[in-house]
Amino acid sequence: MDILQRVGVRSASLNEVYDALTTLEGLSGWWTTDTTGDPEVDGIIKFRFGPGGFDMVVREAEPAKHVLWEVVDGPEEWVGTTITWDLKQEDDYTIVLLKHEGWREPVEFMYHCTTKWAVFLLSLKQLLETGTGSPEPNDLRISNWH
Amino acid sequence: MDILQRVGVRSASLNEVYDALTTLEGLSGWWTTDTTGDPEVDGIIKFRFGPGGFDMVVREAEPAKHVLWEVVDGPEEWVGTTITWDLKQEDDYTIVLLKHEGWREPVEFMYHCTTKWAVFLLSLKQLLETGTGSPEPNDLRISNWH
Repeated sequence: MDILQRVGVRSASLNEVYDALTTLEGLSGWWTTDTTGDPEVDGIIKFRFGPGGFDMVVREAEPAKHVLWEVVDGPEEWVGTTITWDLKQEDDYTIVLLKHEGWREPVEFMYHCTTKWAVFLLSLKQLLETGTGSPEPNDLRISNWH
Repeated sequence: MDILQRVGVRSASLNEVYDALTTLEGLSGWWTTDTTGDPEVDGIIKFRFGPGGFDMVVREAEPAKHVLWEVVDGPEEWVGTTITWDLKQEDDYTIVLLKHEGWREPVEFMYHCTTKWAVFLLSLKQLLETGTGSPEPNDLRISNWH
């Protein structure tokens, strides 16, 4: 089972969106301010949210086009899943397609993560369009699960 | 293939959230201002967005708990799919679980609808928490596809 998302970013080039997905500065501007590690291919990026977080190995990175991460540590529902980013230009927008693939069960946490991914994609859009995103701990809280 | 979403609404009872899903006034306060039809069981609700829209038959409605719609007209990817709402209380929140079930293919429109569903669920949350939602035509535009 997969989570799929699509947003369009105005006034940002493919390269600018790619940088927001492949540099620590970019990632910490829209997902979580506590982002460390090595964002190069085969590197591990560590995303931390309060007490928990995710470790991702960067498996693929094609400039201005495509990124693939594999989750190697974090909540058990996430470990082994992959997150694929595909970028393309359409009209005045840079289109971002996200696929979070390989969920084993449609658990309630998957419902939560779907809505929360949308929130973070809107944070990414906002970062690129206005210069300021809403990464955790300033992310929009959507429920008792944050 | 399904789209799953979860939000929590503060300061609203199960009945208030249920009303926002089962009355024309409620629905037009968070999804689209152009909502007409019959929101009772076996009735057809007509949701309109600009030139297009969806017609849903209300198949199930259990007060304060559960609603199920079947899409009978609209974009071909939507026709035949079902939308299930389940409500429950947790901590200080009324939890809303949405399942949009029966997509035949993971088309790009499904990516878009996932992100857009999240936007409308946040509008539902905002309506119930503040008294004002952001239904179309005042909904947040997320891309060239609106």
